[in-house]
Amino acid sequence: MSVLPGSSAFPSVTLASVQMAPRIGDKKGNIARSVELLEQAAAQGAKLIVLPELANTGYVFQSRSEAFELAEPIPDGESTQAWAAVARRCNVYVVAGIAERVENRLYNCAVLVGPEGFIGSYRKLHLWGDEHLYFEAGDVGLPIFHTEIGRIGMVVCYDGWFPETYRLLATLGADIVAMPTNWVPMAGQPDSMQAMATMLAMANAHSNGLNIVCANRVGVERDQPFIGQSLIVGPQGWPLAGPASNTQEEILYAQINLKATRQARQLNAFNHVLRDRRDDLYDPMLGTGWPLPRH
Amino acid sequence: MSVLPGSSAFPSVTLASVQMAPRIGDKKGNIARSVELLEQAAAQGAKLIVLPELANTGYVFQSRSEAFELAEPIPDGESTQAWAAVARRCNVYVVAGIAERVENRLYNCAVLVGPEGFIGSYRKLHLWGDEHLYFEAGDVGLPIFHTEIGRIGMVVCYDGWFPETYRLLATLGADIVAMPTNWVPMAGQPDSMQAMATMLAMANAHSNGLNIVCANRVGVERDQPFIGQSLIVGPQGWPLAGPASNTQEEILYAQINLKATRQARQLNAFNHVLRDRRDDLYDPMLGTGWPLPRH
Repeated sequence: MSVLPGSSAFPSVTLASVQMAPRIGDKKGNIARSVELLEQAAAQGAKLIVLPELANTGYVFQSRSEAFELAEPIPDGESTQAWAAVARRCNVYVVAGIAERVENRLYNCAVLVGPEGFIGSYRKLHLWGDEHLYFEAGDVGLPIFHTEIGRIGMVVCYDGWFPETYRLLATLGADIVAMPTNWVPMAGQPDSMQAMATMLAMANAHSNGLNIVCANRVGVERDQPFIGQSLIVGPQGWPLAGPASNTQEEILYAQINLKATRQARQLNAFNHVLRDRRDDLYDPMLGTGWPLPRH
Repeated sequence: MSVLPGSSAFPSVTLASVQMAPRIGDKKGNIARSVELLEQAAAQGAKLIVLPELANTGYVFQSRSEAFELAEPIPDGESTQAWAAVARRCNVYVVAGIAERVENRLYNCAVLVGPEGFIGSYRKLHLWGDEHLYFEAGDVGLPIFHTEIGRIGMVVCYDGWFPETYRLLATLGADIVAMPTNWVPMAGQPDSMQAMATMLAMANAHSNGLNIVCANRVGVERDQPFIGQSLIVGPQGWPLAGPASNTQEEILYAQINLKATRQARQLNAFNHVLRDRRDDLYDPMLGTGWPLPRH
């Protein structure tokens, strides 16, 4: 655990990333295991705990009927209810990846539950690979949830490939982005370098002054390997905890400080990572037309 | 030098990044040294060669009168003319950082010259620190220049902190982004990790399928250290050459392939890093309103 500079005058809070290995189709077993790990993290003092993407179902579906059967309504389904019960009992916030079913549509979702129960959910905006066979793309934008520990946003896995998601969350005021993920190997990865997924999180945390909690899964599921390497990144872009191992279940802990977070965007007396944006240029309606003079 | 997969059927081209140490105020000396290094890179077969930011003047100005005296008109000033002469003589493209003077306005610029002379210039959009005392912010957008070796865009140093710049260049069709830079140490950098500037280049190359040539300076100038670590990143986000040393002059070479570049954005049969953008959501005029259904 490391502590950010500037945190002396304001209380810090502990975040946790739970790296686990869900088993495809074993919803009861996955929920039980996740509850066990959440209780363990809560006992260590974590206040916000993040589980991987599709933590309740596993990832590699073989058919639409399998996916439809495993998905459940939010917030009334058993998984969200189980997580909400832990959150209530342990006085913590939990973000968890879950397959949501709304009539005959499925979404790759993240739910946020807290000490007072269900808070809200997010539907993955950017689908990856065969997810296109099972899920609808997200249609609820990038919601921000206000909590005692700060403003929380959620993204899922491939969303992290789009700097736009983090930029929108930051401009909306997010302090902490929780990322349930199921990262897989990427083409061309040299053995000597950390995973691109972790560098994307670090680059985006740095460019936006965000805390990002990435909770990946481990294990091989129906021939698909997952890469672990979960991490918690601070608002200067450096890992506060992790990257975790490539293969083992593990819980990461890091202390973050809301005051240090909200000050981190001011890089020096002239520069602020969000206020320096040239939105006169970025607006896609304007393209690269000649912008207005700026000083 | 490494070669990208998929390059067998289409000729590759060699890019070079010149890491050098300009001396503040010594314009004649800096031009002479840069010409020497350009000739050296050309002799090694480089077709596009990138020099650092403000390669002709040095970076840490002490007064506006010093900056105004060192800056020069583009393309008629002696620096651009000297670089254009090398480009013509050696049949290469050169991108170089230069202080541009237009009447009583200065810009932190990059010029592109080629075998047939001056091609165009770019004015740094995002100013860093004391640059606000000397330069006007860029007012020519992000131009793309079409050349025999592909479409070339330019950014300078702190521009790389804004994923928007790379995204706009990529959506405009850029194949190669040349980045003259004067990277300085960033707060919180752990000794065990590579510089954040290099990770920003890698993350943005990966997210956009771009080749990015970062040419940083080395040395300490009026108490300001620069961090070297120049690199050439391929369209999968991995370094093709570098990072270079923290302190020494050095030339990096990498072969890139236009066919492999333009194919790299298609990650699998479902996913394309640019076409997967949720522009229905990203438009700042729409904010995070409820987007249209997407499949």
